[in-house]
Amino acid sequence: MSGDLLPGELHGSLADPLLDAMTFLNEVTERYPDALSFAPGRPHEGFFETDQVAKHLEVYLDHLRGRGLTEAQVRTALFQYGPTKGIIGDLIARTLANDEGLTVEPASVVVTVGAQEGMLLVLRALCAGPQDVLLVSSPCYVGVTGAARLLDIATVPVPEGDSVALAAIAGRLRAEGRRPRALYVVPDFANPSGTSLPTSVREELLAVAGQQDLLVLEDDPYGFFSRTGERRPTLKALDRDRRVVHLGSFAKTCFPGARLGYLIADQVVRAPDGSTTLLADQLAKLKSMTTVNTPALSQAVIGGLLIAHDFRLREANAGAVAHYAAGLDRLLAELERHFPAAERERLGVGWNEPEGGYFTVLTVPFTADTAAMERCAAQYGVLWTPMADFYPDGGGEHRLRLSISALTADQITDGVARLADFVRAEAGA
Amino acid sequence: MSGDLLPGELHGSLADPLLDAMTFLNEVTERYPDALSFAPGRPHEGFFETDQVAKHLEVYLDHLRGRGLTEAQVRTALFQYGPTKGIIGDLIARTLANDEGLTVEPASVVVTVGAQEGMLLVLRALCAGPQDVLLVSSPCYVGVTGAARLLDIATVPVPEGDSVALAAIAGRLRAEGRRPRALYVVPDFANPSGTSLPTSVREELLAVAGQQDLLVLEDDPYGFFSRTGERRPTLKALDRDRRVVHLGSFAKTCFPGARLGYLIADQVVRAPDGSTTLLADQLAKLKSMTTVNTPALSQAVIGGLLIAHDFRLREANAGAVAHYAAGLDRLLAELERHFPAAERERLGVGWNEPEGGYFTVLTVPFTADTAAMERCAAQYGVLWTPMADFYPDGGGEHRLRLSISALTADQITDGVARLADFVRAEAGA
Repeated sequence: MSGDLLPGELHGSLADPLLDAMTFLNEVTERYPDALSFAPGRPHEGFFETDQVAKHLEVYLDHLRGRGLTEAQVRTALFQYGPTKGIIGDLIARTLANDEGLTVEPASVVVTVGAQEGMLLVLRALCAGPQDVLLVSSPCYVGVTGAARLLDIATVPVPEGDSVALAAIAGRLRAEGRRPRALYVVPDFANPSGTSLPTSVREELLAVAGQQDLLVLEDDPYGFFSRTGERRPTLKALDRDRRVVHLGSFAKTCFPGARLGYLIADQVVRAPDGSTTLLADQLAKLKSMTTVNTPALSQAVIGGLLIAHDFRLREANAGAVAHYAAGLDRLLAELERHFPAAERERLGVGWNEPEGGYFTVLTVPFTADTAAMERCAAQYGVLWTPMADFYPDGGGEHRLRLSISALTADQITDGVARLADFVRAEAGA
Repeated sequence: MSGDLLPGELHGSLADPLLDAMTFLNEVTERYPDALSFAPGRPHEGFFETDQVAKHLEVYLDHLRGRGLTEAQVRTALFQYGPTKGIIGDLIARTLANDEGLTVEPASVVVTVGAQEGMLLVLRALCAGPQDVLLVSSPCYVGVTGAARLLDIATVPVPEGDSVALAAIAGRLRAEGRRPRALYVVPDFANPSGTSLPTSVREELLAVAGQQDLLVLEDDPYGFFSRTGERRPTLKALDRDRRVVHLGSFAKTCFPGARLGYLIADQVVRAPDGSTTLLADQLAKLKSMTTVNTPALSQAVIGGLLIAHDFRLREANAGAVAHYAAGLDRLLAELERHFPAAERERLGVGWNEPEGGYFTVLTVPFTADTAAMERCAAQYGVLWTPMADFYPDGGGEHRLRLSISALTADQITDGVARLADFVRAEAGA
């Protein structure tokens, strides 16, 4: 590579080892394209058909015509700049009523470029100065810690689902003169842990949030994908005091290539001019400085998909729910087969049994770092994700994340066999 | 609005009076839907047809098939997460070669959610600490000053196109222990001023950037729309030392509803691990924390449009170029008709004569603020944009911005007549 080096340091978020780890993992994945991959968090592709895009788009445009828009107005909606909050907030609200039993005012919805942009907007609005802190479940999804780094916002980890620790940590921070503003949590089948919070824990977290003047940022991309059939209320459904900002995504329930997410922010805030507004309105102002609008094209295609499924995305995902449940079942059965109780005791191997979603955590008797992952890819043809990168304060060195989302049941069987060979070899067994 | 107020202040960027001014202008525009509007910066809609979307999408998918992708790989490209830099960097590079004579390595292209996201990424990467400063042309597009506010980055205005002032201001900042990192500039038919920089000034700005160790952020959304037929090289085309990060947008040359932009960042930087990489690669890492990916859907539709026009977007925009040129010609002719030389001397009225683009600045003998704008909307049925909000250090109180982009020639004739009545009334003439 030629050319003079650009003078001056770059922003500290680019020195985050997490970013380098993610880049490295992507590179390893590219270098072993034929490996069986338990690494990606991306959805199964079997439900996608390219000819659906034009159909859903037409459904949405017909919906606009049905609401009395002229052809010129339909054209404007699809092609022009539009309202910063988006154009399908009403359709999203109808879907949430059916799927989650949530009563949502469309005015409190902001359509975003993935849930990632929603996180960025909420963190930016809430954290006004150096004393402001974001609390994050640990282990934690890297998107939110990364967004905080980008904005120079300090994060403090809280053990996942531990409301007592939450109260203690928030109290300690206040005593130090810092201001904990919000807790980030994935209540259902979390990335990376696979953990689901019992309803009682959800209530406890909300109670502590009330006592400690915290908002709760609920990120719920996997909520539909229950393995057991059990379904718990979202934190937003339990929220009686407008403590919860709900972050939603259509990446897993529709498709990632639309990059469509949304947030519900029905909190009342004091605007700089003294008036009271919805937090959603303030977040929309910030959005005008990040992406201006979420693409109308993506909104139209997903909007058409919602209409075509009568605003019932949960039912539309019945096939996906069954697919992921079968994958998790297979993963857990194969782990059990290769590591029966006595064997896993002897080796120091273990795993959790998630109630749904994409992810299971495997504990191994060696350091499960990127070097180990690369050995596993090169010699056994299997990819996975080291867990250590997900712990903001360290930990997880002997853990790895297994995702079943991109594999068939037969691939899972094959992959676990290879993985078992790798684990035994690394353990010297 | 009920509910307890959310405790704690919000981020300072939400107190920016600019945001409130923009919100107010949007509200006024909505309250006077039948007014003739010289306010919007959005493109003319006459060239859009909704049935083009599915056609362009199919052209792109066929292009992938023609490159040997299987149907499953085509599906993945459209529906899944993809490379952070985007999937049509190569198509954009081919188009820039034809349209701008630029030789661009696809590896230095990052496809973004509008040029706005590109600005945010570049500002974030370059400004690492409180001593880092962004220099901005004054008057300045509000998107870049807003992005800087969101990131708590200080901006310092430099008179538009003034390379001597640029050198003096950068030198003064360095003497104060601050570090000017980059200059933001719109070289062609700028928003809001309508100004174009002569080629000699472009060369001077680049020379000063070299002397002062600055990058130049070149934002060029209006470059095609020359009224006179004259065409100048972009700063990137004149850039021999990789000083220029070029920000591009398809909002005005294709359509805004795709929200598709890109940046070219071929600078070599030192990564935190000591290796040298392209700045584009570092910006892509940051993008994984703002929007993860630019929607593949938008990239596919615009990619198909580029292919369908043989990678010659300038020729594809011949109709748009003629339309905007006719609009500007009409505006300038009607201003001349209503305010001939003696009359404008008497009133204290004046305007510039932009060589292209959407915008002209009118100087008036009264304060052209939002209150005046609302009087004009209510009593004369004409909308425009106050200029004062575009001056980071104050100024422009007697100026207003007129955009011809959304009006027909006849509407412009009618609008200028009404505007002239308003100006005379306000001037007490």
